[in-house]
Amino acid sequence: MLAPGWAGSPAAAETADAAFLRALLDAEAALTRAQAALGLAPAGAATAVTEAAGPAGFDVASLAVRARDGGNPVIPLVAELTRAVGAEHGPYVHRGATSQDVMDTAMMLVAHRALGPVLADLDRCRRALARLAAEHRDTPMPGRTLTQHAVPTTFGLKAAGWRSLVLDARDRVTAVRGSLPAQLGGAAGTLAAFSAYGAEDATALPGVYARELGLAEPLLPWHTLRTPVADLAGCLAFAAGALGKLAVDVLTLSRTEIAEAAEGSGGGSSAMPHKANPVRSTLIVAAARRAPQLAATLYGSLVAEDERPAGAWHAEWEPLRDLLRLVGGAARDAAELTEGLRVRPEAMRDHLRLTHGLIVSERLSAELAPVLGRARAKELLTALARRAYQEGRELGELLARESELEGIDVSSLIDPAHYTGSAGPLTDRALERR
Amino acid sequence: MLAPGWAGSPAAAETADAAFLRALLDAEAALTRAQAALGLAPAGAATAVTEAAGPAGFDVASLAVRARDGGNPVIPLVAELTRAVGAEHGPYVHRGATSQDVMDTAMMLVAHRALGPVLADLDRCRRALARLAAEHRDTPMPGRTLTQHAVPTTFGLKAAGWRSLVLDARDRVTAVRGSLPAQLGGAAGTLAAFSAYGAEDATALPGVYARELGLAEPLLPWHTLRTPVADLAGCLAFAAGALGKLAVDVLTLSRTEIAEAAEGSGGGSSAMPHKANPVRSTLIVAAARRAPQLAATLYGSLVAEDERPAGAWHAEWEPLRDLLRLVGGAARDAAELTEGLRVRPEAMRDHLRLTHGLIVSERLSAELAPVLGRARAKELLTALARRAYQEGRELGELLARESELEGIDVSSLIDPAHYTGSAGPLTDRALERR
Amino acid sequence: MLAPGWAGSPAAAETADAAFLRALLDAEAALTRAQAALGLAPAGAATAVTEAAGPAGFDVASLAVRARDGGNPVIPLVAELTRAVGAEHGPYVHRGATSQDVMDTAMMLVAHRALGPVLADLDRCRRALARLAAEHRDTPMPGRTLTQHAVPTTFGLKAAGWRSLVLDARDRVTAVRGSLPAQLGGAAGTLAAFSAYGAEDATALPGVYARELGLAEPLLPWHTLRTPVADLAGCLAFAAGALGKLAVDVLTLSRTEIAEAAEGSGGGSSAMPHKANPVRSTLIVAAARRAPQLAATLYGSLVAEDERPAGAWHAEWEPLRDLLRLVGGAARDAAELTEGLRVRPEAMRDHLRLTHGLIVSERLSAELAPVLGRARAKELLTALARRAYQEGRELGELLARESELEGIDVSSLIDPAHYTGSAGPLTDRALERR
Amino acid sequence: MLAPGWAGSPAAAETADAAFLRALLDAEAALTRAQAALGLAPAGAATAVTEAAGPAGFDVASLAVRARDGGNPVIPLVAELTRAVGAEHGPYVHRGATSQDVMDTAMMLVAHRALGPVLADLDRCRRALARLAAEHRDTPMPGRTLTQHAVPTTFGLKAAGWRSLVLDARDRVTAVRGSLPAQLGGAAGTLAAFSAYGAEDATALPGVYARELGLAEPLLPWHTLRTPVADLAGCLAFAAGALGKLAVDVLTLSRTEIAEAAEGSGGGSSAMPHKANPVRSTLIVAAARRAPQLAATLYGSLVAEDERPAGAWHAEWEPLRDLLRLVGGAARDAAELTEGLRVRPEAMRDHLRLTHGLIVSERLSAELAPVLGRARAKELLTALARRAYQEGRELGELLARESELEGIDVSSLIDPAHYTGSAGPLTDRALERR
Repeated sequence: MLAPGWAGSPAAAETADAAFLRALLDAEAALTRAQAALGLAPAGAATAVTEAAGPAGFDVASLAVRARDGGNPVIPLVAELTRAVGAEHGPYVHRGATSQDVMDTAMMLVAHRALGPVLADLDRCRRALARLAAEHRDTPMPGRTLTQHAVPTTFGLKAAGWRSLVLDARDRVTAVRGSLPAQLGGAAGTLAAFSAYGAEDATALPGVYARELGLAEPLLPWHTLRTPVADLAGCLAFAAGALGKLAVDVLTLSRTEIAEAAEGSGGGSSAMPHKANPVRSTLIVAAARRAPQLAATLYGSLVAEDERPAGAWHAEWEPLRDLLRLVGGAARDAAELTEGLRVRPEAMRDHLRLTHGLIVSERLSAELAPVLGRARAKELLTALARRAYQEGRELGELLARESELEGIDVSSLIDPAHYTGSAGPLTDRALERR
Repeated sequence: MLAPGWAGSPAAAETADAAFLRALLDAEAALTRAQAALGLAPAGAATAVTEAAGPAGFDVASLAVRARDGGNPVIPLVAELTRAVGAEHGPYVHRGATSQDVMDTAMMLVAHRALGPVLADLDRCRRALARLAAEHRDTPMPGRTLTQHAVPTTFGLKAAGWRSLVLDARDRVTAVRGSLPAQLGGAAGTLAAFSAYGAEDATALPGVYARELGLAEPLLPWHTLRTPVADLAGCLAFAAGALGKLAVDVLTLSRTEIAEAAEGSGGGSSAMPHKANPVRSTLIVAAARRAPQLAATLYGSLVAEDERPAGAWHAEWEPLRDLLRLVGGAARDAAELTEGLRVRPEAMRDHLRLTHGLIVSERLSAELAPVLGRARAKELLTALARRAYQEGRELGELLARESELEGIDVSSLIDPAHYTGSAGPLTDRALERR
Repeated sequence: MLAPGWAGSPAAAETADAAFLRALLDAEAALTRAQAALGLAPAGAATAVTEAAGPAGFDVASLAVRARDGGNPVIPLVAELTRAVGAEHGPYVHRGATSQDVMDTAMMLVAHRALGPVLADLDRCRRALARLAAEHRDTPMPGRTLTQHAVPTTFGLKAAGWRSLVLDARDRVTAVRGSLPAQLGGAAGTLAAFSAYGAEDATALPGVYARELGLAEPLLPWHTLRTPVADLAGCLAFAAGALGKLAVDVLTLSRTEIAEAAEGSGGGSSAMPHKANPVRSTLIVAAARRAPQLAATLYGSLVAEDERPAGAWHAEWEPLRDLLRLVGGAARDAAELTEGLRVRPEAMRDHLRLTHGLIVSERLSAELAPVLGRARAKELLTALARRAYQEGRELGELLARESELEGIDVSSLIDPAHYTGSAGPLTDRALERR
Repeated sequence: MLAPGWAGSPAAAETADAAFLRALLDAEAALTRAQAALGLAPAGAATAVTEAAGPAGFDVASLAVRARDGGNPVIPLVAELTRAVGAEHGPYVHRGATSQDVMDTAMMLVAHRALGPVLADLDRCRRALARLAAEHRDTPMPGRTLTQHAVPTTFGLKAAGWRSLVLDARDRVTAVRGSLPAQLGGAAGTLAAFSAYGAEDATALPGVYARELGLAEPLLPWHTLRTPVADLAGCLAFAAGALGKLAVDVLTLSRTEIAEAAEGSGGGSSAMPHKANPVRSTLIVAAARRAPQLAATLYGSLVAEDERPAGAWHAEWEPLRDLLRLVGGAARDAAELTEGLRVRPEAMRDHLRLTHGLIVSERLSAELAPVLGRARAKELLTALARRAYQEGRELGELLARESELEGIDVSSLIDPAHYTGSAGPLTDRALERR
């Protein structure tokens, strides 16, 4: 209701309470299967737990409330699952594990699953932006610094820059997603209970368990070594910010006075039919405003005392989910936004004339110095620039009247479209990155 | 599922999607009633909208997804409500208002409603802590600074300090709750549409509207003047931190090695029957770790450009709800915690002896100086303290053997229970505050 | 070097290392004087310590490095001050106090001193904005929501809104500044050492001490009850955000394409003489981006374990100073900005025509319904609005050709300057607030 | 004065205003040399600028104040440097560049230089922790979860875990440090001015420039593509948190009641000779409390509008410096802490007995089930555990009296030192990582 940014997105489905329940049950089932694979449980137990661990039989809302007593939902879930498995194989449910093993593993499963669609949506952005950058490789527009026109640039270079950030996000998310480890350590991370239950070499168990789940094998139990969570925080905050840059630029370009770009289908307003709000950009920016602080909470949870911290761990769950949702929603919105973006080269060209030619004053300084001498060139330009600015006259026209400049092709020098520097080659170079 | 800290709490109910839906509908109904009261709508419209605005007929999940198009849930809700009201009075639904009017007002309603139980729970804390402070006014315990025993204090003073923070939180929450304003401004905060619809003095409308809702009348439409949201952020971050102080102290006092206090009913562990985890404190601390960053996002949203910002506003909704939930859950847990806290004065007394008397070395320095001269007193104490510390002997015993100190009642000087300074009077003074 | 936002400001001077040194020494001197006032130290000691506590004799850089050993600068400072006071009265330096007493008190002194100029600069803003609001009470301009023109508003109402936030900031800063307490509790907050040194009622000392310093008397020692620090965090984050709203609006209005306002003296660029960067607004926005996270760190430090926390306290010092500096700089910049702001009503008027009249479509819907019937009015307007938008024609012109509307003064209805609703009365009302 | 955590550290020197001045001047000199290398400036200009760019001639404080006008220190610096270079080669100073080119490049240089000592200190930690882990591979101690004894672990595994985090930090910092790029793009990132000044292929210039500085070549000008800054934020927040975990554990182990470890040289207290405060840990924890929020500000600055943002860029400078300082100080403190840490195995062993044997109840459940049957084993253990806990008797003693258990070596089962599971092999495995 309060989350138009991610409601209905793939990430919303993959991070819902039901998805967490499924991940918790997947973790429990994989644990029993891994023990069976190492001869620590009968094969029948692996089958029985796997079968009982279908989410159908469990009530999320009830588990959520019962999670209060022990401070996490695994405790009531294990009780229910054990009951569902029955007397014979029930004792093999959760055997040797601690709640955190299952909770952390489920978190990693959920993150892994939620990041799949995120990467797919980033890929859609990448392709859409490549197309925009190539198409507008030579579309000149004002380069703006501190809100003011500075010198010309191209829309192609701008889109190539957005794409470069999307690729940076993709690379960071991909690397972190591929490294997400299963968690298995037992009550204090020593794997001791597994030995008590008969394992000759309990250190073999985490690897088998991880493979059952499609997660990475941890070097150590990481109950209080929260690198995986911090890495998720970092790549998600990055992704939100990268998409936020793209969105804030679209917001600016969409302003009524600028109108150099527009979202394909803006949000309408019944009272004001002309309003086409840049809703996709707005929601992406909203996500980018929130993500850094959520990541900060997760980085803060690195300071996890003892063998299980009293609070730092519990403080991770919701912010991690929120980050997955926000980035999932922002990636979806960014894909739609970039695929549907309408670019208006003619508005860009019009705006290049807004400063009466002053937008190329940098170029004139550079090019006239060898002709007039540096001092005279500067003096002349400063004077004419002031006149152009104050009188609203065209700098090119003023220059054309200067006898000192006879023989110089002022009209070419003054054309903003001719002063886009290396924007084209830089765009080409950026598009070579895959 | 991921929120044992607030699941099942009153704040959870008051901030659920259903509660927001109710608040949105309440805001719409009040708007039509206010217009009717000023003669801008027929009385029948007020009745019809109020009747149609029962939450029964609306589907939260569907509204949430449809909120995507326009970026907020008010747009689809108004369409549905208008349909439900019917042809005759439908045009009076939402007339003259903008989505943000209703959304902001609903936020304030939800905050107002959720803070009621928060204040009640803070009040339970206040009473429980007053009882603990009075009961343990003279219970000596080690004062700890940078993790080390410093000088004695009392548990009464500690509890009085916790209570003082609870009162600070109560005062801040009460003040903010009482000032939460309704929002009404129309599309850009000028109330223009209400005049177009016939209001002679549209500035009278917000006050009537606010009174319909039990909210404060705003001085100005605050679409982009976000003081109420920032004030909520501040008082909620404060409350979370205030309760976090209490909780982190309980965590320390609950440590197996310290065991000077215990939660009344700790979370159990089936595998380890002796474990009584301080779950309430843990969940409060988890809330206190998250609240500041959520508040930071809300403070950041003060920077709200134009007459409605593209992102800053949307970034407020979930963090504000999260804060209400976290503080609501923490207040509930703190009430249960303080009401059930078990204090172990004998453990406190035992620990006062852990430093072999060095915990009163500050006192000895002060009291022996007039007897022995400052220099000699310092020399003697430094030497004996070192021996006591290194040899594990009692400082009192070493002092009693010093002929220089004959005639001085060393055993009284050395008794930590006699060196609690003004802890008692300070506790009394703190308890006078209501 | 990295802080153009606050370098050279009054807040910079009041928060420099030298200012902290002065505050630490002021706290030490006041402590001895307070003890003398209560007969706990000879009058000569008060004089001697006060005289020795001139900052001239102390080396800030050396103290800063020596602070490492004990984790705070008070320890080496007390050693030096004691030496400077000399053998006779040296023992009365810092007697009975703990480092935190002096450090916290100095923090409060610095905050008190730094907030003086902040309030003065907020007052300059208030006056400048009152002038702008009154002057432009009836200057129409586009109201913008989600970057798009919505309906007209006035610059007067905008300026009145900014002023309202400045007043909110002033009120919050003033209240907090007036409540900043001195800190005195001794090693663990029991005031025990003062009794050991002979005080009959040590609880009288903090009040005398506070009055010596011009600070408020604390109800309890607040070593670990960090309300004053959290309150500072809240009011400073608020002030930064309030000024940030003003600044982000000026940035938007300053855009080359909009140019409805300009800073009096923008930052120049040697290479581009036409560029007048809105530097003041830029630096204010930069401060507003940082303040919330600094406040979050301070709110987080409420969770201060024991009688002195190992880290939470130390984490307060730099962020609190940073906040004072950022807000100090932003207030200075905001004063200069508002006093020098150039407003361009003609640009505002021009922009009201950018949507070909659609900016008043809300009004037309309301006003034509009684004439044409609701259904027909909507149908007609939707059709004409689409034509106006797509063909770039004036809505007024299209309306004037409609025979249905004969006899209606379309030209008045369509004039954006006539559709500013209650902007004027709201501005008046806001300016009544002092 | 307020920063005992980093004052006097190598990072303090490398991030001082003087170091930034040096980096700015290095960037300017490298720019002219790079242009000379490509034939865009005379060799004499390269020499002249490099010579004039010694920091001696510049006044940091004056530059800092003059930075206000334009919003950054490069503008006044270039003016001074140009003057110092003289009339002939002065025009080659800063030619074609924009302030941000130099500022960003200097930031990267400073970060590169400051991270050198950080990595060296992390390496000291790594070695010290390897020694501790190996030495205490088999030193049993209580594993603590949610503040309560859970099952035994070893100090070796704990130290190996700390080391693992230190290596994670080293890997992340090393990777980011190696990728820090120079910045060169000109006024709007198109390199246009360099072409105007005669470059045939201006895209060659950034690479030459980067090599002059020992920084990476950027793929694109990154004025508003802030990946390098975000990556620094991430690795620094991670490093602070990783060291914070180590420090918070030392704080706990240092508590007077626990005393299983102590800093080599704790901070002393003159009034209380026995107090050996864990100052190094305290300051590290303070850094870890602040770093996440500073990183959040930097992640937030990814949302950098246009070709140079008005605020987001300026908001980076101080937080990035703060992060470098905090992590630099924390790494230094962590090196000293780990090298000097005193471990007390006998205290650890004593504490293993605090729960009267209940710390191995998990093991007993596992091992007695095959002997007694699961149900009977559970029944018996629950009953005896309750007695042991309530009567303060040894569980082993109670078990030894049970006739059912005759023939079982209860004393071995009950020995906590025999229930450390795979702590040893896990430690070995962790130490193999280099």
